[in-house]
Amino acid sequence: MSATHASVVLRSIGVIHSEHRQAEKTPIQPVFARGCPGRVEVFPEFAEGLKDIEGFSHLILLYVFDRAAAAPLLITPFMDDVPRGMFATRHPGRPNPIGLSVVRLVRRDGRVLSIMDVDILDDTPLIDIKPFVPRFDIPDKPLGGWIEEVDPELAQVRGRRGHGGRP
Amino acid sequence: MSATHASVVLRSIGVIHSEHRQAEKTPIQPVFARGCPGRVEVFPEFAEGLKDIEGFSHLILLYVFDRAAAAPLLITPFMDDVPRGMFATRHPGRPNPIGLSVVRLVRRDGRVLSIMDVDILDDTPLIDIKPFVPRFDIPDKPLGGWIEEVDPELAQVRGRRGHGGRP
Repeated sequence: MSATHASVVLRSIGVIHSEHRQAEKTPIQPVFARGCPGRVEVFPEFAEGLKDIEGFSHLILLYVFDRAAAAPLLITPFMDDVPRGMFATRHPGRPNPIGLSVVRLVRRDGRVLSIMDVDILDDTPLIDIKPFVPRFDIPDKPLGGWIEEVDPELAQVRGRRGHGGRP
Repeated sequence: MSATHASVVLRSIGVIHSEHRQAEKTPIQPVFARGCPGRVEVFPEFAEGLKDIEGFSHLILLYVFDRAAAAPLLITPFMDDVPRGMFATRHPGRPNPIGLSVVRLVRRDGRVLSIMDVDILDDTPLIDIKPFVPRFDIPDKPLGGWIEEVDPELAQVRGRRGHGGRP
Protein backbone atom coordinates (compact mmCIF):
# COMPACT_ATOMS: atom_id res chain seq x y z
CA MET A 1 0.00 0.00 0.00
CA SER A 2 1.48 3.34 -1.01
CA ALA A 3 0.89 6.24 1.33
CA THR A 4 -1.08 8.20 -1.21
CA HIS A 5 -4.77 7.54 -1.66
CA ALA A 6 -4.37 3.81 -1.26
CA SER A 7 -6.57 1.30 0.46
CA VAL A 8 -6.20 -1.64 2.81
CA VAL A 9 -8.55 -4.56 3.37
CA LEU A 10 -9.27 -5.68 6.93
CA ARG A 11 -11.02 -8.87 7.98
CA SER A 12 -12.88 -9.38 11.23
CA ILE A 13 -11.05 -11.51 13.80
CA GLY A 14 -14.09 -11.94 16.01
CA VAL A 15 -17.39 -10.46 17.17
CA ILE A 16 -18.30 -8.18 20.07
CA HIS A 17 -21.53 -9.06 21.87
CA SER A 18 -23.36 -6.59 24.10
CA GLU A 19 -26.79 -5.66 25.35
CA HIS A 20 -26.93 -2.63 23.04
CA ARG A 21 -29.16 -3.34 20.07
CA GLN A 22 -30.12 0.17 18.96
CA ALA A 23 -27.47 2.62 17.88
CA GLU A 24 -29.41 5.63 19.17
CA LYS A 25 -29.58 4.15 22.67
CA THR A 26 -25.98 2.99 22.88
CA PRO A 27 -23.72 4.92 25.29
CA ILE A 28 -21.12 6.87 23.36
CA GLN A 29 -18.09 5.87 25.47
CA PRO A 30 -17.17 3.26 28.13
CA VAL A 31 -17.20 6.03 30.76
CA PHE A 32 -20.93 6.39 30.08
CA ALA A 33 -21.47 2.61 29.97
CA ARG A 34 -20.28 1.70 33.46
CA GLY A 35 -21.69 -1.68 34.40
CA CYS A 36 -22.70 -2.65 30.86
CA PRO A 37 -21.41 -6.18 30.27
CA GLY A 38 -20.28 -7.69 26.99
CA ARG A 39 -18.30 -10.50 25.43
CA VAL A 40 -15.56 -10.61 22.86
CA GLU A 41 -15.69 -13.81 20.85
CA VAL A 42 -12.45 -14.35 18.97
CA PHE A 43 -12.67 -16.67 15.96
CA PRO A 44 -10.91 -20.05 16.49
CA GLU A 45 -8.17 -19.32 13.97
CA PHE A 46 -7.00 -16.32 16.03
CA ALA A 47 -7.47 -17.80 19.53
CA GLU A 48 -3.77 -18.56 20.02
CA GLY A 49 -3.09 -14.83 20.00
CA LEU A 50 -4.96 -14.43 23.32
CA LYS A 51 -2.18 -16.03 25.40
CA ASP A 52 -1.10 -13.79 28.33
CA ILE A 53 -3.99 -11.37 27.86
CA GLU A 54 -5.36 -12.17 31.33
CA GLY A 55 -2.64 -10.04 32.93
CA PHE A 56 -4.09 -6.83 31.52
CA SER A 57 -6.96 -5.09 33.29
CA HIS A 58 -8.04 -3.11 30.23
CA LEU A 59 -8.04 -3.73 26.50
CA ILE A 60 -8.16 -1.41 23.53
CA LEU A 61 -10.71 -2.80 21.10
CA LEU A 62 -10.70 -1.71 17.47
CA TYR A 63 -13.89 -2.52 15.64
CA VAL A 64 -16.02 -1.56 12.66
CA PHE A 65 -18.82 0.99 12.99
CA ASP A 66 -20.85 -1.23 10.69
CA ARG A 67 -24.20 0.47 11.32
CA ALA A 68 -23.08 4.11 11.31
CA ALA A 69 -23.97 6.28 8.34
CA ALA A 70 -21.15 8.35 6.90
CA ALA A 71 -21.35 11.89 8.30
CA PRO A 72 -20.05 15.23 7.01
CA LEU A 73 -16.58 16.41 8.10
CA LEU A 74 -18.21 19.16 10.15
CA ILE A 75 -20.56 17.48 12.58
CA THR A 76 -22.46 18.45 15.71
CA PRO A 77 -21.33 15.86 18.29
CA PHE A 78 -23.73 14.12 20.68
CA MET A 79 -22.26 16.08 23.58
CA ASP A 80 -22.35 19.53 22.02
CA ASP A 81 -24.57 21.97 20.13
CA VAL A 82 -22.10 23.41 17.64
CA PRO A 83 -20.43 21.75 14.66
CA ARG A 84 -16.93 20.41 15.26
CA GLY A 85 -14.34 18.93 12.95
CA MET A 86 -14.82 15.16 12.66
CA PHE A 87 -11.22 14.52 13.79
CA ALA A 88 -11.84 16.56 16.95
CA THR A 89 -14.72 14.20 17.84
CA ARG A 90 -15.24 10.48 18.36
CA HIS A 91 -18.30 10.43 16.10
CA PRO A 92 -18.92 7.05 14.41
CA GLY A 93 -19.58 8.47 10.93
CA ARG A 94 -15.85 8.95 10.17
CA PRO A 95 -14.19 8.59 6.75
CA ASN A 96 -12.82 5.22 7.93
CA PRO A 97 -15.47 3.70 10.21
CA ILE A 98 -13.12 2.27 12.85
CA GLY A 99 -14.18 2.55 16.50
CA LEU A 100 -11.91 2.44 19.54
CA SER A 101 -12.98 1.64 23.09
CA VAL A 102 -10.92 1.01 26.22
CA VAL A 103 -12.89 -1.69 28.06
CA ARG A 104 -12.33 -3.56 31.29
CA LEU A 105 -11.29 -7.22 31.02
CA VAL A 106 -13.13 -9.31 33.59
CA ARG A 107 -12.34 -12.89 32.62
CA ARG A 108 -11.11 -15.10 29.83
CA ASP A 109 -12.73 -18.44 29.02
CA GLY A 110 -10.82 -19.92 26.12
CA ARG A 111 -11.47 -17.64 23.15
CA VAL A 112 -14.22 -15.65 24.87
CA LEU A 113 -13.40 -12.54 26.88
CA SER A 114 -15.91 -11.17 29.39
CA ILE A 115 -15.67 -7.39 29.37
CA MET A 116 -17.33 -4.48 31.19
CA ASP A 117 -18.15 -0.83 30.45
CA VAL A 118 -19.15 -1.76 26.92
CA ASP A 119 -20.32 1.06 24.62
CA ILE A 120 -20.41 -1.09 21.51
CA LEU A 121 -23.40 -2.35 19.53
CA ASP A 122 -24.22 -6.06 19.72
CA ASP A 123 -22.68 -8.14 16.90
CA THR A 124 -20.00 -5.65 16.02
CA PRO A 125 -17.10 -6.96 13.89
CA LEU A 126 -13.83 -6.97 15.83
CA ILE A 127 -10.67 -5.83 14.02
CA ASP A 128 -7.98 -5.88 16.68
CA ILE A 129 -7.32 -6.28 20.41
CA LYS A 130 -4.39 -4.38 21.88
CA PRO A 131 -3.44 -4.53 25.54
CA PHE A 132 -3.86 -1.20 27.35
CA VAL A 133 -0.38 -0.42 28.66
CA PRO A 134 -0.36 2.48 31.16
CA ARG A 135 3.27 3.23 30.29
CA PHE A 136 2.40 3.59 26.60
CA ASP A 137 -1.14 4.89 26.61
CA ILE A 138 -1.35 7.54 29.32
CA PRO A 139 0.40 10.72 28.17
CA ASP A 140 1.71 13.50 30.41
CA LYS A 141 -0.86 16.15 31.31
CA PRO A 142 -3.34 15.57 28.48
CA LEU A 143 -5.81 18.33 27.64
CA GLY A 144 -9.18 17.34 26.22
CA GLY A 145 -10.12 20.37 24.08
CA TRP A 146 -13.78 21.34 23.72
CA ILE A 147 -14.90 18.16 25.47
CA GLU A 148 -13.44 19.41 28.76
CA GLU A 149 -15.78 22.39 28.57
CA VAL A 150 -18.92 20.24 28.50
CA ASP A 151 -20.66 20.27 31.89
CA PRO A 152 -19.99 16.84 33.49
CA GLU A 153 -23.65 16.34 34.39
CA LEU A 154 -24.83 17.20 30.88
CA ALA A 155 -22.11 14.91 29.51
CA GLN A 156 -23.46 12.02 31.61
CA VAL A 157 -27.01 12.58 30.37
CA ARG A 158 -26.04 12.93 26.71
CA GLY A 159 -23.31 10.31 26.82
CA ARG A 160 -25.58 7.61 28.23
CA ARG A 161 -28.20 8.24 25.55
CA GLY A 162 -31.10 7.03 27.60
CA HIS A 163 -29.17 4.17 29.12
CA GLY A 164 -29.90 4.01 32.83
CA GLY A 165 -26.33 3.62 33.95
CA ARG A 166 -25.32 1.37 36.81
CA PRO A 167 -22.31 2.95 38.41
CA MET B 1 -20.30 -5.92 6.61
CA SER B 2 -21.60 -8.90 8.55
CA ALA B 3 -19.87 -9.72 11.80
CA THR B 4 -18.69 -13.11 10.61
CA HIS B 5 -15.51 -13.40 8.58
CA ALA B 6 -16.26 -10.29 6.60
CA SER B 7 -13.94 -7.57 5.38
CA VAL B 8 -13.88 -3.80 5.24
CA VAL B 9 -11.89 -1.54 2.94
CA LEU B 10 -10.12 1.50 4.39
CA ARG B 11 -8.56 4.34 2.44
CA SER B 12 -5.74 6.56 3.65
CA ILE B 13 -6.81 10.05 4.70
CA GLY B 14 -3.27 11.39 4.84
CA VAL B 15 0.39 10.56 5.42
CA ILE B 16 2.58 10.58 8.53
CA HIS B 17 6.08 11.96 8.04
CA SER B 18 8.89 11.25 10.49
CA GLU B 19 12.66 10.90 10.71
CA HIS B 20 12.37 7.10 11.03
CA ARG B 21 13.27 5.44 7.75
CA GLN B 22 14.25 1.94 8.89
CA ALA B 23 11.73 -0.25 10.67
CA GLU B 24 14.38 -1.97 12.79
CA LYS B 25 15.60 1.37 14.16
CA THR B 26 12.17 2.88 14.86
CA PRO B 27 11.21 3.25 18.52
CA ILE B 28 8.38 0.90 19.39
CA GLN B 29 6.20 3.40 21.28
CA PRO B 30 5.94 7.19 21.73
CA VAL B 31 7.28 6.79 25.28
CA PHE B 32 10.53 5.57 23.72
CA ALA B 33 10.47 8.28 21.05
CA ARG B 34 10.51 11.38 23.26
CA GLY B 35 11.69 14.34 21.25
CA CYS B 36 11.22 12.67 17.85
CA PRO B 37 9.34 15.15 15.65
CA GLY B 38 6.93 14.35 12.86
CA ARG B 39 4.16 15.76 10.70
CA VAL B 40 0.70 14.56 9.85
CA GLU B 41 -0.34 15.69 6.38
CA VAL B 42 -4.08 15.33 5.90
CA PHE B 43 -5.25 15.13 2.30
CA PRO B 44 -7.14 18.26 1.12
CA GLU B 45 -10.48 16.47 0.84
CA PHE B 46 -10.41 15.68 4.59
CA ALA B 47 -8.94 18.97 5.86
CA GLU B 48 -12.29 20.36 7.02
CA GLY B 49 -12.41 17.60 9.65
CA LEU B 50 -9.45 19.18 11.49
CA LYS B 51 -11.48 22.09 12.86
CA ASP B 52 -11.15 22.40 16.69
CA ILE B 53 -8.31 19.90 16.88
CA GLU B 54 -5.93 22.54 18.25
CA GLY B 55 -7.59 22.31 21.67
CA PHE B 56 -6.30 18.79 22.25
CA SER B 57 -2.78 18.22 23.57
CA HIS B 58 -2.61 14.62 22.35
CA LEU B 59 -4.02 12.70 19.40
CA ILE B 60 -4.67 9.03 18.81
CA LEU B 61 -3.36 8.18 15.36
CA LEU B 62 -4.51 5.03 13.59
CA TYR B 63 -2.32 4.04 10.68
CA VAL B 64 -1.28 1.13 8.50
CA PHE B 65 1.77 -0.96 9.37
CA ASP B 66 2.53 -1.03 5.66
CA ARG B 67 6.10 -2.36 5.98
CA ALA B 68 5.55 -4.97 8.69
CA ALA B 69 5.61 -8.64 7.74
CA ALA B 70 2.77 -10.75 9.08
CA ALA B 71 3.92 -12.56 12.23
CA PRO B 72 2.72 -15.73 13.97
CA LEU B 73 0.06 -15.45 16.70
CA LEU B 74 2.67 -16.45 19.27
CA ILE B 75 5.46 -13.93 19.02
CA THR B 76 8.47 -12.92 21.10
CA PRO B 77 8.00 -9.18 21.58
CA PHE B 78 10.83 -6.65 21.25
CA MET B 79 10.76 -6.09 25.01
CA ASP B 80 10.77 -9.71 26.12
CA ASP B 81 12.48 -13.05 25.61
CA VAL B 82 9.50 -15.40 25.71
CA PRO B 83 6.66 -15.83 23.21
CA ARG B 84 3.46 -13.95 24.02
CA GLY B 85 0.04 -13.96 22.42
CA MET B 86 -0.11 -11.35 19.64
CA PHE B 87 -3.14 -9.66 21.28
CA ALA B 88 -1.15 -9.29 24.52
CA THR B 89 1.50 -7.31 22.59
CA ARG B 90 1.66 -4.23 20.38
CA HIS B 91 3.69 -6.05 17.73
CA PRO B 92 3.20 -4.66 14.18
CA GLY B 93 2.75 -8.04 12.47
CA ARG B 94 -0.89 -8.38 13.59
CA PRO B 95 -3.70 -10.07 11.63
CA ASN B 96 -5.01 -6.59 10.76
CA PRO B 97 -1.95 -4.35 10.40
CA ILE B 98 -3.36 -1.26 12.13
CA GLY B 99 -1.07 0.73 14.41
CA LEU B 100 -2.10 3.06 17.21
CA SER B 101 0.04 5.80 18.75
CA VAL B 102 -0.83 8.54 21.22
CA VAL B 103 1.28 11.49 20.04
CA ARG B 104 1.67 15.05 21.26
CA LEU B 105 0.12 17.78 19.09
CA VAL B 106 2.45 20.77 18.85
CA ARG B 107 0.89 22.96 16.18
CA ARG B 108 -1.54 23.00 13.30
CA ASP B 109 -0.81 24.81 10.04
CA GLY B 110 -3.79 24.31 7.79
CA ARG B 111 -3.93 20.63 7.00
CA VAL B 112 -0.51 19.85 8.47
CA LEU B 113 -0.14 18.90 12.13
CA SER B 114 3.27 19.11 13.82
CA ILE B 115 3.57 16.28 16.30
CA MET B 116 6.14 15.00 18.82
CA ASP B 117 7.14 11.66 20.35
CA VAL B 118 6.67 9.97 16.99
CA ASP B 119 7.32 6.20 16.82
CA ILE B 120 5.99 5.84 13.28
CA LEU B 121 7.91 5.13 10.07
CA ASP B 122 8.20 7.94 7.54
CA ASP B 123 5.51 7.93 4.82
CA THR B 124 3.04 5.82 6.77
CA PRO B 125 -0.58 5.85 5.52
CA LEU B 126 -2.92 7.56 7.99
CA ILE B 127 -6.31 5.95 8.61
CA ASP B 128 -7.87 8.08 11.35
CA ILE B 129 -7.22 10.84 13.87
CA LYS B 130 -9.13 10.72 17.14
CA PRO B 131 -8.73 13.31 19.88
CA PHE B 132 -7.25 11.90 23.08
CA VAL B 133 -9.89 12.62 25.72
CA PRO B 134 -8.62 12.02 29.28
CA ARG B 135 -12.18 11.40 30.45
CA PHE B 136 -12.66 8.64 27.85
CA ASP B 137 -9.20 7.19 27.44
CA ILE B 138 -7.69 6.87 30.91
CA PRO B 139 -9.29 3.96 32.77
CA ASP B 140 -9.32 3.48 36.54
CA LYS B 141 -6.27 1.70 37.95
CA PRO B 142 -5.07 0.00 34.76
CA LEU B 143 -2.69 -2.96 35.07
CA GLY B 144 -0.23 -3.58 32.27
CA GLY B 145 0.29 -7.36 32.43
CA TRP B 146 3.69 -8.82 31.49
CA ILE B 147 4.90 -5.45 30.25
CA GLU B 148 4.89 -4.10 33.81
CA GLU B 149 7.40 -6.79 34.76
CA VAL B 150 9.97 -5.63 32.22
CA ASP B 151 12.79 -3.73 33.92
CA PRO B 152 12.28 -0.02 33.07
CA GLU B 153 15.91 0.45 32.04
CA LEU B 154 15.88 -2.61 29.79
CA ALA B 155 12.57 -1.39 28.35
CA GLN B 156 14.16 1.96 27.45
CA VAL B 157 17.10 0.26 25.72
CA ARG B 158 14.97 -2.22 23.80
CA GLY B 159 12.11 0.19 23.16
CA ARG B 160 14.33 2.84 21.58
CA ARG B 161 15.91 0.30 19.24
CA GLY B 162 19.15 2.15 18.85
CA HIS B 163 17.52 5.54 18.71
CA GLY B 164 19.47 7.95 20.89
CA GLY B 165 16.50 9.42 22.64
CA ARG B 166 16.32 13.08 23.53
CA PRO B 167 14.33 13.28 26.74
